[in-house]
Amino acid sequence: MSDHQAINLRQKLSLFHEKYSPRIVAQLNDYHFKVAKLEGEFLWHSHPETDEAFLVIEGELTLEFRDGAVVLGPGELYVVPRGVEHKPVAEKECHLLLIEPAATVNTGDAGGERTVIPQWI
Amino acid sequence: MSDHQAINLRQKLSLFHEKYSPRIVAQLNDYHFKVAKLEGEFLWHSHPETDEAFLVIEGELTLEFRDGAVVLGPGELYVVPRGVEHKPVAEKECHLLLIEPAATVNTGDAGGERTVIPQWI
Repeated sequence: MSDHQAINLRQKLSLFHEKYSPRIVAQLNDYHFKVAKLEGEFLWHSHPETDEAFLVIEGELTLEFRDGAVVLGPGELYVVPRGVEHKPVAEKECHLLLIEPAATVNTGDAGGERTVIPQWI
Repeated sequence: MSDHQAINLRQKLSLFHEKYSPRIVAQLNDYHFKVAKLEGEFLWHSHPETDEAFLVIEGELTLEFRDGAVVLGPGELYVVPRGVEHKPVAEKECHLLLIEPAATVNTGDAGGERTVIPQWI
């Protein structure tokens, strides 16, 4: 009998409090599933090499674009196409699932001090 | 102002009733996000070329393996590794999100009459 364990996203989110610091919860081929807590504004950036999927679990996330914005609530998904500048903004604390290639950096082409190397949780 | 639209998973699921007939809702690079409704037993199969991610949205899904099983409730994720035989079973209707390469066939190496070509919804 092997040990097959469900990954409970809310339980994983309960294990940390840092904002804009994604934690890896699963791997699918060379992609990572990451949970993250957001509050406040992130920085404008893009990922020239990859699309990036956002699925909101709790709260509300606004993704600002140079030509508009989309607001995501729980159970809502959006895929930011590669190379498209975006700025995540959460007025209140928001919990989400990110799906992207394992090598994707949170700050994309912008880099800087808000760059984090995500850890498994 | 461009038209950025959230993809609401429950709204997408309200648009069809067929069981074991995944519908594509989003694309991330060469991967598809698919919503599906399951009820009853599927068949034993594996995907020799790819991992496959299951995220339950509503209801309960059992993934049976040759050496055990995992039960997933809402907000729970499991990644079936490539080549691992599995059989999805839902005693009652279950709604879920699948994430896998665009070319992935629902019946994997088993094939047969339950194979479906997923459409966008």
